[in-house]
Amino acid sequence: MRRDPQQKSPLALTFRGTVLDVLDQRLLPGTYRMIRCRTHRQVAECIRGMAVRGAPAIGCAAAFGLALAAQERRFPSRRELLAYLQKAAQTLRATRPTAVNLAWAVQRILRVAKEPVSVSVLQRAVIREAERLFAEDQAANRRLGDYGATLLSPNNVIMTYCNTGSLATAGYGTALGVVRSAFRQGKVAKVLVCETRPYLQGARLTAWELRLERIPCELITDNMAAFIMTQEHVDAVIVGADRVAANGDVANKIGTYALAILAKVHQVPFYVAAPTSTLDPQIASGAEIPIEERPAQEVTSLQGVSIAPPRMPARHPAFDVTPASYIAALVTERGIAYPPYGGSITQLLSSGRPSEPLKEAPALIGASV
Amino acid sequence: MRRDPQQKSPLALTFRGTVLDVLDQRLLPGTYRMIRCRTHRQVAECIRGMAVRGAPAIGCAAAFGLALAAQERRFPSRRELLAYLQKAAQTLRATRPTAVNLAWAVQRILRVAKEPVSVSVLQRAVIREAERLFAEDQAANRRLGDYGATLLSPNNVIMTYCNTGSLATAGYGTALGVVRSAFRQGKVAKVLVCETRPYLQGARLTAWELRLERIPCELITDNMAAFIMTQEHVDAVIVGADRVAANGDVANKIGTYALAILAKVHQVPFYVAAPTSTLDPQIASGAEIPIEERPAQEVTSLQGVSIAPPRMPARHPAFDVTPASYIAALVTERGIAYPPYGGSITQLLSSGRPSEPLKEAPALIGASV
Repeated sequence: MRRDPQQKSPLALTFRGTVLDVLDQRLLPGTYRMIRCRTHRQVAECIRGMAVRGAPAIGCAAAFGLALAAQERRFPSRRELLAYLQKAAQTLRATRPTAVNLAWAVQRILRVAKEPVSVSVLQRAVIREAERLFAEDQAANRRLGDYGATLLSPNNVIMTYCNTGSLATAGYGTALGVVRSAFRQGKVAKVLVCETRPYLQGARLTAWELRLERIPCELITDNMAAFIMTQEHVDAVIVGADRVAANGDVANKIGTYALAILAKVHQVPFYVAAPTSTLDPQIASGAEIPIEERPAQEVTSLQGVSIAPPRMPARHPAFDVTPASYIAALVTERGIAYPPYGGSITQLLSSGRPSEPLKEAPALIGASV
Repeated sequence: MRRDPQQKSPLALTFRGTVLDVLDQRLLPGTYRMIRCRTHRQVAECIRGMAVRGAPAIGCAAAFGLALAAQERRFPSRRELLAYLQKAAQTLRATRPTAVNLAWAVQRILRVAKEPVSVSVLQRAVIREAERLFAEDQAANRRLGDYGATLLSPNNVIMTYCNTGSLATAGYGTALGVVRSAFRQGKVAKVLVCETRPYLQGARLTAWELRLERIPCELITDNMAAFIMTQEHVDAVIVGADRVAANGDVANKIGTYALAILAKVHQVPFYVAAPTSTLDPQIASGAEIPIEERPAQEVTSLQGVSIAPPRMPARHPAFDVTPASYIAALVTERGIAYPPYGGSITQLLSSGRPSEPLKEAPALIGASV
């Protein structure tokens, strides 16, 4: 089991030049099984079928998919290699529409593939770029985690959603990376883990990562969040993101929007943690983010057990959009952006320099619900 | 299969003088199995283990439990019968703390058992009273359904929560009774069914009842409700209740409070439907309602399948409290109460006469969230 060097959780992806081992997260925590991919099509199938999920992780998987594609046949010329990579990129990009990291990673690899060098040099360059992207995501998460921890205070109770840990990224995690960093600083008394229906990424994956690291945690069903907020003091809600629009609207796992509303009503600051690769300044607002609708059967059955009458119609939007007005801060590896996000996101992306993290969390921006 | 005379759904309870057949709702919709009870202890076990659930249904089950208790042995005198019934009442009442219908039904039967008549006359009276209580609940639900339907308009899209149908009552249902009545009047285009974790009463039971009656419906996970409200027009949310305090605060299935907040933020009227047996004027506010905490294991596993790491701690409050300020109207079999509920609930209970149902839903009371 390959592990993140700075923590106990296993890695979602292990690349060894000509093969990519994908940890099948659909079977966790009961069964630990790797899917060995030798072609980009196998990688695409892992992404589409959600063996690997999480915006940064599927970005890395797609990059490795292109590294495999570059070696899948003999290419007589640069042009043929590039054409094949472009076709592979299309296949990989088409697997899931919402997370922008997928398109971002594919584009970054293709940029390298356009350099005017020999086929074999290009092949090595593509592989190296995929490996670099993976290493950079891990490093970014650790910086992001440390920035995010500055928003918390000793013995905080933190609620989190879906899985944003090692399994959702190249390692360490985004929102769960913040939890990891904060825990090491004595700032985490307990993590309340929303189970995150229908895929139960919270119950199956986040709970597993937290237990492996002995971070105190409690599982709740998603519909308990509001009542729990009235029963015990919750200091912060921290979630990840699949795409952040230029105005700060955030697409994330279905249920995030509801949780943001409930946090605001109970005056709990709602933080989003994501690397800058998740920012999409190309689109103005969340209304433009494509929301994937997945099969109804993923709602009407659970691990092979049917939980509804036969042929019951069901909806399955896999993501939702949380308006920027609900988000108290956006934590990235370059620093923390605060509302209004139009300006602060542009600044983060253009400066290239990390912002100074604030010592204390600012007051919640008081937009009315 | 015994069915409600006015609809296709099967009955939760079938009483035949000396036996009570309880439909085991934990196995639905996959398996249809009856638990035959000959003693009040067996009935208590069915209530505690949630083979039968739903506030009105467990009230009826407890009444039938006492009818069985009255025949469980030979009683030399009235006093001994009464003492035995009182002990049985205690056992039945102790099964679940939140729904007031349980205590209400038990008290009603015990009142009959105190009449100064012979043992055999008393035994028959107790049985008759339990049967009457059951028949009255069915009739009340049908009246309640018709009142509630006046709040809706042709082709409305209605969101509902948990199961409040035939299976949760003596028949017909409370919130789902409103849906039934409204559907017959052409007022229901579609019902959005929240699955209702952790017991999935929505996915397993409400979906089943709606499909049996061919009422158009779609299943959603609980965490989709908010996003769906932004994507399509939802005309009303209708839920049931386990206990209503004098000020109109409502205890109901965990998740109801969150749904009420989400409805208000999206300006969707939030209605509660419950017979007057669910009103508890003895308690001033929701803060006094005891909230049952059930085993964590009901959250960490689902139909025998573990969905979390071994020994994962979990919370399982089975109910929550929705403040009266979120509730646009309270539908009962005596009419519809509107805010402020302190006055309107007292009026409903004291007059004994049905109120005039309004022709149109009033504007949502504009308490800020």
